[in-house]
Amino acid sequence: MAVGLGPLSTLHPVAGFELGIASAGIKRPGRKDVVVMRCAEGSTVAGVFTLNAFCAAPVILARKRVTGTVRYLLTNTGNANAGTGEEGLKNAERTCAALAKLAGVDEASVLPYSTGVIGEPLPVEKIEGALQAALDNLSENNWADAAAGIMTTDTQPKGASRQFEHDGVTITVTGISKGAGMIKPNMATMLGYIATDAKVAQGVLQDLLRDAANKSFNRITIDGDTSTNDCCMLIATGKAALPEITSASGELFAKLKEAVFAVSMEVAQAIVRDGEGATKFVTVEVNGGATHQECLDVGYAVAHSPLIKTALFASDPNWGRILAAVGRAGVPQLDVSLIDVYLGDVCIASRGGRAATYTEAQGAAVMAKEEISIRIELGRGNCSETIWTTDLSHEYVKINAEYRT
Amino acid sequence: MAVGLGPLSTLHPVAGFELGIASAGIKRPGRKDVVVMRCAEGSTVAGVFTLNAFCAAPVILARKRVTGTVRYLLTNTGNANAGTGEEGLKNAERTCAALAKLAGVDEASVLPYSTGVIGEPLPVEKIEGALQAALDNLSENNWADAAAGIMTTDTQPKGASRQFEHDGVTITVTGISKGAGMIKPNMATMLGYIATDAKVAQGVLQDLLRDAANKSFNRITIDGDTSTNDCCMLIATGKAALPEITSASGELFAKLKEAVFAVSMEVAQAIVRDGEGATKFVTVEVNGGATHQECLDVGYAVAHSPLIKTALFASDPNWGRILAAVGRAGVPQLDVSLIDVYLGDVCIASRGGRAATYTEAQGAAVMAKEEISIRIELGRGNCSETIWTTDLSHEYVKINAEYRT
Repeated sequence: MAVGLGPLSTLHPVAGFELGIASAGIKRPGRKDVVVMRCAEGSTVAGVFTLNAFCAAPVILARKRVTGTVRYLLTNTGNANAGTGEEGLKNAERTCAALAKLAGVDEASVLPYSTGVIGEPLPVEKIEGALQAALDNLSENNWADAAAGIMTTDTQPKGASRQFEHDGVTITVTGISKGAGMIKPNMATMLGYIATDAKVAQGVLQDLLRDAANKSFNRITIDGDTSTNDCCMLIATGKAALPEITSASGELFAKLKEAVFAVSMEVAQAIVRDGEGATKFVTVEVNGGATHQECLDVGYAVAHSPLIKTALFASDPNWGRILAAVGRAGVPQLDVSLIDVYLGDVCIASRGGRAATYTEAQGAAVMAKEEISIRIELGRGNCSETIWTTDLSHEYVKINAEYRT
Repeated sequence: MAVGLGPLSTLHPVAGFELGIASAGIKRPGRKDVVVMRCAEGSTVAGVFTLNAFCAAPVILARKRVTGTVRYLLTNTGNANAGTGEEGLKNAERTCAALAKLAGVDEASVLPYSTGVIGEPLPVEKIEGALQAALDNLSENNWADAAAGIMTTDTQPKGASRQFEHDGVTITVTGISKGAGMIKPNMATMLGYIATDAKVAQGVLQDLLRDAANKSFNRITIDGDTSTNDCCMLIATGKAALPEITSASGELFAKLKEAVFAVSMEVAQAIVRDGEGATKFVTVEVNGGATHQECLDVGYAVAHSPLIKTALFASDPNWGRILAAVGRAGVPQLDVSLIDVYLGDVCIASRGGRAATYTEAQGAAVMAKEEISIRIELGRGNCSETIWTTDLSHEYVKINAEYRT
């Protein structure tokens, strides 16, 4: 039931970044469930990882190794290797070591990613058995297959690509993601991989990824449940014939930033559009906050409210629920008489009460759409934040209640 | 579908506290929707009110007037008088003034309470038209009728009563409540009224109510949405032939406290048991926290997680979802290797991972029950907190999606 998510657009290859897909039969025989990505020598790599204290074994290992030389990313679906303790860490190390041996690289240059059921032992032998096939399959043209290969309960593969010119050279930024909830039905969730052929110093790349994630992956929510396995990686292969970007300034950096932000946003929003049981794609924009944090507090209070989410599902312009969520967001000394709320372009609440001009028919017309924006004007300052979310449908309960039954 | 909520038990009358019920036809002709409560002269009254910044007009008025002399509480259902701005405040004042005139008391001694749809003008004339009938109906024996009279989408009336002896005198504490979600389907929610014939100084009474609410009403959650209209009142009529309680010490105070806590807990838990679409009554106990706040953060992360709530609905012992919620609760420097999690008496996770002794059959046996406890041992300190909640069912989505359709 993905909302406004068409077939994959063209995913341009990134010079120096290859992807290989294979089948290890982790959950089902024949399903593509192992993806190996090879970064050309000299690549710089940045990563952002879940803040969940119960983070999975592969997260622990990848977070440690991303600061060194990175040559391979090894992803499996069907098993999250989370809640697996010491043994899980050893299993993650074993699969990386096996790939390193086959590829003839240092073990520490292989970073693991797992997504799937929490709490079951990683099927190391199955994964090891598929590594040679994945290596044999490596190609710069495999983005679409990889986007499908990292899916779990996603209904559609997710990817985006941008190109821009600089000094006559074409630079490419391509990314893929998976996930249909911040945590999946017994599954651990979001993975994102973005690569570019620009040459970027690691520190600059890490800051760029953090900033991009903070405007995209870190601004989406399906159900408020942060996964144990979330990771997003940004790889710069440096294969484009342009000088290295060594600081967050200049025209080249600005163009790259725009492209990375665009790709991040598109694949992050794709996760929301494919959210579990989603029938609506909802933008919650909070303006006029005194701080960014209070904008986020208000935005998440709205985006997580089960009452607002069920009203969205029902296409019910239930503005009282929006006011109530804003009011409980914990903003200090909130003066409700300054607050305006818009549904699409329709002002539904003005100065803290129902807008005099508002009619139920106006609200119903906005709510009937698949893509809905809720805009809250706090009137307290100049900060803004935007969050993307979904509705709460019968299908969400069905998916998450019946997953293991 | 109330969980473990039987018919109302005996609600002992409280000397000096009378209740009168009438029908104003606010939503439906003939429905009992106005309740007047009369406090004997000399009563002391305490109140706790919603922290929602968008609090309703009657909350603003009642909160102001509770510090003075209180003689009448006027409650209507069917309309929350919330999100109604200045006009709402005037309307609340008008209904109080009308009751004061009929009863021959000062206008400021009448406190209003409204529950129902948000954002519609209070039907003042309808309410005024029912006041004489409510006054004519006043009786100390009307607790059960009043419990029914304050219901909105509650499926059952809620009340509790305790009596104790002190120096040969019987003291009574009786209370009623309404609510089936922290905010109702377009309705504003929780009301609680507890009365005793003990004589208690106002400051002591206010502290007692705040403490009781913090262990009962402030520890329940259906959906995390705090209502604009929540109020809980504690009235001490002083009609029992015992000295005034002027401090929070001594045997009489201890007995009263025990009775008030017991009544608060019973009527608060009744709200959860009657939660929208509830099929489970769930106790989340967090022990071993370094602070009370971190126990609450963990407890609410678990109690609000849609993934845990859907698993509870499905009777699925999905322990990975519980670990993931604990891990995302924002506890600083959380050492997961110290954490144990119990489902009922079954240890499902030990030192941060699946317990070696745990079998799926053990977990399934606990989850099959209607009343389920989740106990989390943080191993960081000596603080504990307990929260009560429900599951998230198809019926919840149905109730909240279809309320206005």
